[in-house]
Amino acid sequence: MTIWFGGDYNPEQWAETVWQEDVVLMQQAGVTMVTVGVFSWSWLEPQEGTFTFEWLDRVLDTLHAAGIRVDLATATASPPPWLSHRYPDSLPVTETGVRLQRGARQAYCPSSPDYRRLAARLAGEIARRYADHPALELWHINNEYGCHVSRCYCETSAAAFRRWLTNKYGTVENLNRAWGTAFWSQRYGSIDEVTVPSAAPAFRNPTQLLDFDRFSSDEILGIFREEAAAVRAASPSVPITTNFMGLFKPLDYWAWAAELDVISDDCYPDPVDPDSPYLAAMTRDLMRSLADGKPWLLMEQSAGAVNWRPSNAAKPEGMMRAWSYQAIARGADGILYFQWRQSERGAERFHSAMLPHTGTDSVSWKAVCQLGGELREIGDALDAPTHGSVGIMLDWDSWWSIEQTGLPSTIDYMEGVRAWYRTLYDAGVAIDFVNPRSDLGRYSAIVVPTLFVATSDALAALSAYAEAGGRLLVGYQSGITDEEGRLTPGGYLGSLAETLGVRIDEFFPLPVPGSVPADSVRLRANDLGVRDAVGIVWSERLVITSADVVARFASGPLEGEAAITRRSAGAGQAWYAATLPDPWLRSRLVAQLLAGTGVLEDAVAVPGVEVTRRGRHRFVINQTASAVSVPIAGQTLSVEPYGVRILEGDTVWRD
Amino acid sequence: MTIWFGGDYNPEQWAETVWQEDVVLMQQAGVTMVTVGVFSWSWLEPQEGTFTFEWLDRVLDTLHAAGIRVDLATATASPPPWLSHRYPDSLPVTETGVRLQRGARQAYCPSSPDYRRLAARLAGEIARRYADHPALELWHINNEYGCHVSRCYCETSAAAFRRWLTNKYGTVENLNRAWGTAFWSQRYGSIDEVTVPSAAPAFRNPTQLLDFDRFSSDEILGIFREEAAAVRAASPSVPITTNFMGLFKPLDYWAWAAELDVISDDCYPDPVDPDSPYLAAMTRDLMRSLADGKPWLLMEQSAGAVNWRPSNAAKPEGMMRAWSYQAIARGADGILYFQWRQSERGAERFHSAMLPHTGTDSVSWKAVCQLGGELREIGDALDAPTHGSVGIMLDWDSWWSIEQTGLPSTIDYMEGVRAWYRTLYDAGVAIDFVNPRSDLGRYSAIVVPTLFVATSDALAALSAYAEAGGRLLVGYQSGITDEEGRLTPGGYLGSLAETLGVRIDEFFPLPVPGSVPADSVRLRANDLGVRDAVGIVWSERLVITSADVVARFASGPLEGEAAITRRSAGAGQAWYAATLPDPWLRSRLVAQLLAGTGVLEDAVAVPGVEVTRRGRHRFVINQTASAVSVPIAGQTLSVEPYGVRILEGDTVWRD
Amino acid sequence: MTIWFGGDYNPEQWAETVWQEDVVLMQQAGVTMVTVGVFSWSWLEPQEGTFTFEWLDRVLDTLHAAGIRVDLATATASPPPWLSHRYPDSLPVTETGVRLQRGARQAYCPSSPDYRRLAARLAGEIARRYADHPALELWHINNEYGCHVSRCYCETSAAAFRRWLTNKYGTVENLNRAWGTAFWSQRYGSIDEVTVPSAAPAFRNPTQLLDFDRFSSDEILGIFREEAAAVRAASPSVPITTNFMGLFKPLDYWAWAAELDVISDDCYPDPVDPDSPYLAAMTRDLMRSLADGKPWLLMEQSAGAVNWRPSNAAKPEGMMRAWSYQAIARGADGILYFQWRQSERGAERFHSAMLPHTGTDSVSWKAVCQLGGELREIGDALDAPTHGSVGIMLDWDSWWSIEQTGLPSTIDYMEGVRAWYRTLYDAGVAIDFVNPRSDLGRYSAIVVPTLFVATSDALAALSAYAEAGGRLLVGYQSGITDEEGRLTPGGYLGSLAETLGVRIDEFFPLPVPGSVPADSVRLRANDLGVRDAVGIVWSERLVITSADVVARFASGPLEGEAAITRRSAGAGQAWYAATLPDPWLRSRLVAQLLAGTGVLEDAVAVPGVEVTRRGRHRFVINQTASAVSVPIAGQTLSVEPYGVRILEGDTVWRD
Repeated sequence: MTIWFGGDYNPEQWAETVWQEDVVLMQQAGVTMVTVGVFSWSWLEPQEGTFTFEWLDRVLDTLHAAGIRVDLATATASPPPWLSHRYPDSLPVTETGVRLQRGARQAYCPSSPDYRRLAARLAGEIARRYADHPALELWHINNEYGCHVSRCYCETSAAAFRRWLTNKYGTVENLNRAWGTAFWSQRYGSIDEVTVPSAAPAFRNPTQLLDFDRFSSDEILGIFREEAAAVRAASPSVPITTNFMGLFKPLDYWAWAAELDVISDDCYPDPVDPDSPYLAAMTRDLMRSLADGKPWLLMEQSAGAVNWRPSNAAKPEGMMRAWSYQAIARGADGILYFQWRQSERGAERFHSAMLPHTGTDSVSWKAVCQLGGELREIGDALDAPTHGSVGIMLDWDSWWSIEQTGLPSTIDYMEGVRAWYRTLYDAGVAIDFVNPRSDLGRYSAIVVPTLFVATSDALAALSAYAEAGGRLLVGYQSGITDEEGRLTPGGYLGSLAETLGVRIDEFFPLPVPGSVPADSVRLRANDLGVRDAVGIVWSERLVITSADVVARFASGPLEGEAAITRRSAGAGQAWYAATLPDPWLRSRLVAQLLAGTGVLEDAVAVPGVEVTRRGRHRFVINQTASAVSVPIAGQTLSVEPYGVRILEGDTVWRD
Repeated sequence: MTIWFGGDYNPEQWAETVWQEDVVLMQQAGVTMVTVGVFSWSWLEPQEGTFTFEWLDRVLDTLHAAGIRVDLATATASPPPWLSHRYPDSLPVTETGVRLQRGARQAYCPSSPDYRRLAARLAGEIARRYADHPALELWHINNEYGCHVSRCYCETSAAAFRRWLTNKYGTVENLNRAWGTAFWSQRYGSIDEVTVPSAAPAFRNPTQLLDFDRFSSDEILGIFREEAAAVRAASPSVPITTNFMGLFKPLDYWAWAAELDVISDDCYPDPVDPDSPYLAAMTRDLMRSLADGKPWLLMEQSAGAVNWRPSNAAKPEGMMRAWSYQAIARGADGILYFQWRQSERGAERFHSAMLPHTGTDSVSWKAVCQLGGELREIGDALDAPTHGSVGIMLDWDSWWSIEQTGLPSTIDYMEGVRAWYRTLYDAGVAIDFVNPRSDLGRYSAIVVPTLFVATSDALAALSAYAEAGGRLLVGYQSGITDEEGRLTPGGYLGSLAETLGVRIDEFFPLPVPGSVPADSVRLRANDLGVRDAVGIVWSERLVITSADVVARFASGPLEGEAAITRRSAGAGQAWYAATLPDPWLRSRLVAQLLAGTGVLEDAVAVPGVEVTRRGRHRFVINQTASAVSVPIAGQTLSVEPYGVRILEGDTVWRD
Repeated sequence: MTIWFGGDYNPEQWAETVWQEDVVLMQQAGVTMVTVGVFSWSWLEPQEGTFTFEWLDRVLDTLHAAGIRVDLATATASPPPWLSHRYPDSLPVTETGVRLQRGARQAYCPSSPDYRRLAARLAGEIARRYADHPALELWHINNEYGCHVSRCYCETSAAAFRRWLTNKYGTVENLNRAWGTAFWSQRYGSIDEVTVPSAAPAFRNPTQLLDFDRFSSDEILGIFREEAAAVRAASPSVPITTNFMGLFKPLDYWAWAAELDVISDDCYPDPVDPDSPYLAAMTRDLMRSLADGKPWLLMEQSAGAVNWRPSNAAKPEGMMRAWSYQAIARGADGILYFQWRQSERGAERFHSAMLPHTGTDSVSWKAVCQLGGELREIGDALDAPTHGSVGIMLDWDSWWSIEQTGLPSTIDYMEGVRAWYRTLYDAGVAIDFVNPRSDLGRYSAIVVPTLFVATSDALAALSAYAEAGGRLLVGYQSGITDEEGRLTPGGYLGSLAETLGVRIDEFFPLPVPGSVPADSVRLRANDLGVRDAVGIVWSERLVITSADVVARFASGPLEGEAAITRRSAGAGQAWYAATLPDPWLRSRLVAQLLAGTGVLEDAVAVPGVEVTRRGRHRFVINQTASAVSVPIAGQTLSVEPYGVRILEGDTVWRD
């Protein structure tokens, strides 16, 4: 298996004389593939219907002559100025009615027929011209779909939304029933009366909001489909990708992933954020889970600083390499950067690149070259990715729904996901992400931080998982509504209540952080240790029907009532957490949840260090600025700051 | 006297089979009256001019058969989608020009002729159909007027504003004079040139802003009048109400109250805010003061949590009952909830209800039933409300004006009102709210936290009150402008300066909270005790003409100058506070202000406990989560957490 | 030399009977000149084309009869309501498309042909009518240009922007090259496709933004030119001014100053901000630098409080006088106030005035009269201003550019300027502001806090300055781009790198304040003293080519690397600071930078005291609320709180 190495290459920014220097330096850096054409539309089609591919021919020929493969973009990510000048309705509109202007990028309404027609045409033109180019390795459809405009509130979008609703509901009566329009006098006489959820005087209908999120994800997926169809028609055998952006709320990547041949991710952790290692690990694990056996690429990372944070820290020496190996260890088949050569002008002049402003006599260039060389060496020896032992449930319907307004509390959906991921990560456990339709049976445990929206099938699947011997941990605000946003039939938790052995009497959400009253509650869990613990975000009055109480609330109006429960469910266990426990208690709970599964016995847990298995190899990565010692395979490995050591079996294979 | 008990009933959310269960459970809960139809427009008039009252007939018949009275709404609170679809100009527009969309509620411009015509027509249709229905107890006009849209900046509103101005000023010359348009070259050639105060490059004309606030309150009152006229034409003998929202800035409830037969209030204190008891007491006292002898209802409260705060806490056991008795003690004639049965769908799914998602086997249902039973028992024995001993002045013109920009400081009008109310509340004093036109003579003392806008009549009335023997305390920023927003003729304080015995030389507002310089000033008041005190919000350089100095500034540029003064004015006293003293000093000042009036001798002051007289009865309410002992009537009453004990004379009547 | 003394006089706010009282009181206060007509448009031209000058004739005659000179405004600062009523497109539009409304002031689009035509006509009418009026002293063009509307995003502005771009670039190809439109597919097919930079989905093109800032400053200067031309045509010999607003980002005052005969400034430091003395000193020094030999006036200050801050503190006794003398000491030729008589109505009722609401029996009126008398006494004896010893570089292109988004960090341009100014101010050094085209040779040292945008000429001038014997200190983020926003040819610092003896390898900006990671870095500079220091805002990895290292980073990823360097460059020195040192280290650096120049030997540095030379006189101003002792001229001067003592040579001349 070869590891792709390279980055975005935007030659139109440079005189052709520079291109020759580029390929020489690419070879020096070990580049094997570059992404070409992402922002080339205005250079390829300078006016509507006039195409100027000759320069791109020369670029591809030049790359091919140097042995560099090409991930060729459909060039549709940023429409040229002429497009919105001729078709002003193609510009997107915000929730408060502001029509966004060209002059940045991605200035298009996802439903614009003009944008979509012209994008599909360009994709087809490019595909036909380059389908047989010998440098072609991969098709790159568009770029970072939805990054800047994932929701549009213009009239074109409203009409598209109504078509989507008509398709879904058939009749306005069905829509009225599903949305519960009897409340607040929202009954529609016709789907023609439905609008997009732009600014309104009060809370919107929650099912309208949820459907608008689903529609918007689908609508953008529709652009992908149209471009992909145009490409596949001309070039059926070359695989297709588009680049995701990690844990990106606007698009349901579970639905998207099914349509890609190769999963790609753009990932820019903040070098000064101490949480970056585990946050990046989450996105690697998500990509491997989305790929589910297909290849996945780290399509974009930065050699140094980015330019879009309030302050853009550079990466200390070693960090970029450590983070790259983190992706490899978690299954990546390529390490690429945005971009090859740092721009001299334009909006991303200050985004670092493989070849920086400061040239080849620079610390960061040397780091790029070193990594390129290493990956070329080890690529062929790597196995396919190893999947996780524990599954964490991630569900876009729940994410969208629980972050609406008008709910019991203001909940950051990812806070719970991050918290449980972090606990498992710190324990050295290999983690996959799963969704309610996944095959859960292959995991030793399933953690459901919050499944606010749950179909009856989803609830049944979780119960079945536990009954069949699985270890199931369910967090608060799960099974609250069905897929229509209606109170779960049978009440909160639905059919899962019996599996968990609890019933919910009343929600007592804790104050949001920064409120005057305490935003946490004390917890007591004597059988997990003597120490008191704390819960945040949530509490609720539980009625125990058949569960054991693992921890109780120890302060507040629910003092003495159950907080965390466990029930033997068939061959397995079903845990319920009515609060978000602090890290200490989470780690105790995870230890009990996994007891007897063998998962923890196989894990190496050293603070700041990741030990990750990929087939025969284990990658030991020091994510800190200090040297560490890691007991592993009967020895003590020392790893330098940001150092990486790779074991094959129990033997050190690479340093 | 019967105490109404019940809540909003929205049967259109439910199958008719549920209605029978509803009335059975209502009877079980002790419900005597429900509010029907608040959000029924789209169900009653599914398309313009087509009315479908049959289902509502059945609802009212069902209720009547069960002996439940009906507060029948005009159903105009939330126009149906077809209305704004047919009449898009009926949608409201924000200060920055955003036209708000349907899909929530209250999406109408208060000046929309289409909304008003159709609302009045519907009100008339309903009134004619149900005027003689035997279940009818009360007419409920619209709902929470102005809650979400109290100011509209569309062209229709602008035209209405110009009509209102023409009516007020007659000529543009009068308007130019009143508004002071000579400044900043704002002279209008015609009232046609006047706009609503939408977003502008700099501070707006303050009198334009004040007139726009007055117009907006009047304009919405105009909707009420049109609906009420339609109802009264068909049903002249049934009383009319609409529900207020406590201390609600957008509408001048003094003007509104005069037009209602029954005063109603919606009140949702935050269960985790330790200030909620006194804040709720304020709104009860305001409603009793607005009613001024007419009945008043707690029209909406929640059985548990609401769903519109960032975090919506449930009520600990006992709290809902304690807060309900607080309203009864302060004169309420009814305790109702929003809503009867918790919605399964829609924007308020998570707003608690009398009958919660979790059904009748729940803590909160039991609390509702208990209270219903108790109120049915005691209702007949209750006397009319007892009015307060001290009046606090509340004036919407001042509230609107002092919270404009371009003023000496950023003052929260209610901060001062709350502060003085709190001090009197803590002292156990019975408090009314008064306005500048009230009969002040019946109060032992009048506290004027801030009367920024004062007519010469208002200033004269205050002087006369003191001269006639009253105890008058006036706070800073009173008598600053007349009703046109012009510097008070004769200078700050106008004719009141002589009564107070002080003159203001220059304002020295303190920095706003959170500024780097200190936002408080030290105060020294030796004759009130040895302790140093602190003032916030305000300081100013006073010139003493004939007052005694009670406290002096003890730091800052005014160190040593007078801060609080007292003058014997005729038979009474006139106090002036040039700062907002801290709670300790306020309590000392109140003690002196009331010395000799007998007010304090009659009061019971125990922290966390309210002792409130209603005719023969005194209600002792423990507003805390701990048991308390209350010395009262020659005995020591113990009251459990959130407990209520009622005395008749000196004897415990109910526990 | 006479010192002008007076203020804005807005007689249209008052009955004519008041005018007579006004001039009597003006004489009492020592007023010599008033500014008339600033907000008179709607009173002078009540409808389009109808002029009513008679009342203004009487005002000027009345003033002249009292011996008071007139700074006569063109009255165009605030267009009358009829203008935007007739020409609604003349109203400005915000970045998000909100058209701002009349009813405040300055409600016009700078490119509006209607506003500009009517403003120039009015200016001409006034100029022709009053060119020969004997009271006329100075023409006051418009007022505070750009204060509220300095950028307009309407279609008229967009068309004007395109004309400006066509004028600058000639062809769209030149624009495409300069803006780097190859990036993000922004290539324009025609300048017609270019828009103003209103709200967009992502970061805008940085050169588009910079050009829009330049265009906007130019466009408003165009209004000035049109009005000035109309005035000069009728009144060629009377000098012309317009009032600046200190360090005002929207307008490039270097370009503006060249077109004025007299520089004017409006300056309103916050009385409770302890930084106000030095911040005010900065603006005085800037005005003197802009004037560069021409007169300059403190055109507006407040007698007491303003009304536009969140809290508007009054001035303690003495402060207004001290701040006035600060301006005189730094070269001002006049002290004027906004406004003469405090308004009774309108948006600035609560802005203090020479004659306050509280009248002549007030502390602030007496302070005004005292100052007027003193200035009349000393005016004739004052010399021309003395220029500074050290120049601080101030550059609007850099200011505009470095505060864009999409940059390495979020940098407050003025933070660095203020920091270095403050250090020099605290050292008692006389400071000028300079720009890249100034004659640098007359300064002992030049400090360049940040010159983000630098032409090759600017870089060469700085090198030449050092080579010729100057002391040059350059801060981080200088020489980063050229005037097109392109990476500086030759790399960061361009030709200055050699002079400084350093090269930049990679930026490591520090976290922005309030971030979780530390937002400062420790520094060690042993040869400047033993104490450790701290740097904020910035760090970067330097490569030393020929400089000496003065301080090193002592924490973080660059620990041990160079932070501050010095190189002997020809006859001078070239210092580079890769961070913003703390005040202690800055004072040490300034001491070394100026060592041997004689500058510090001539300075008096007493905390809270300014000693400023103006020709023969030295002004000793106590800027604190406590008495101070100042060692000067071989004696110890005691100065009372906010006191002022003036020395002529070594002798006290005035107290």
